[in-house]
Amino acid sequence: MKANIAAITLAVEDLERSLRFYREGLALASPGIIGTEFAGGDHEPGGAVAMFTLDNGLILSLYERVNLAKDAGIDYARTTGSPMSLGYFADSEEEVDRILARVEQSGGTIVRAPLVRPWGIYAGYFADPDGHLWEVVYFLPTAQ
Amino acid sequence: MKANIAAITLAVEDLERSLRFYREGLALASPGIIGTEFAGGDHEPGGAVAMFTLDNGLILSLYERVNLAKDAGIDYARTTGSPMSLGYFADSEEEVDRILARVEQSGGTIVRAPLVRPWGIYAGYFADPDGHLWEVVYFLPTAQ
Repeated sequence: MKANIAAITLAVEDLERSLRFYREGLALASPGIIGTEFAGGDHEPGGAVAMFTLDNGLILSLYERVNLAKDAGIDYARTTGSPMSLGYFADSEEEVDRILARVEQSGGTIVRAPLVRPWGIYAGYFADPDGHLWEVVYFLPTAQ
Repeated sequence: MKANIAAITLAVEDLERSLRFYREGLALASPGIIGTEFAGGDHEPGGAVAMFTLDNGLILSLYERVNLAKDAGIDYARTTGSPMSLGYFADSEEEVDRILARVEQSGGTIVRAPLVRPWGIYAGYFADPDGHLWEVVYFLPTAQ
């Protein structure tokens, strides 16, 4: 088994809204929504998805909650919550602040304004329109 | 801004249990729990974390729910749920089956037995001990 995660799929309420947020708020490039030819059904998930291929090859996918629930065979209610965070490592404190400002202008929510943590980072949290947490982190030089 | 996610932090109930699961069930290597010198407090998060550096440089972190809640400044109750999945791309149908079997033996749960999807994949879902979903995917040759 490889030590690898190839994709992160975020369950979203509104695919168009989330695609717009990730394009505008995080400046990510995507060919747009694909897979709409797979319409799904009462028990079958639809295939509509928006994907971003990141610099390290990782695929960030946006997929509607209702489809994730059907695809995994779980209750729709279980597809909410904020039990994880995605980490963006910034090059400066200023970049952290700049990203959070941009995100907020694009429909995200600042969950925690940036602050210094004892383990040597300057970091803040935002949530995307569905509540998925992102931590924007700058490693302080003094942290070695 | 870079098109990058540098880390995925999963909120877990029991750090030791999750570390064991990811080591045994997914064969991932980690130096173990670090950061325990940052004990935290009523309102300050503790720093204890277990990290796995994956092949593409991505860091998978395990962090206790209570600490994520304090770190992000969100309600503890919000740190549950299954609103995303992590994707592992396997090299064969057999590898999909093998991974799911191993995961189950290591304390994970098979959420959906593998099946063929119309978009040309053979895939199943499992959940780690905290309910975080993983999709184990093989792209069928006929899917081009």
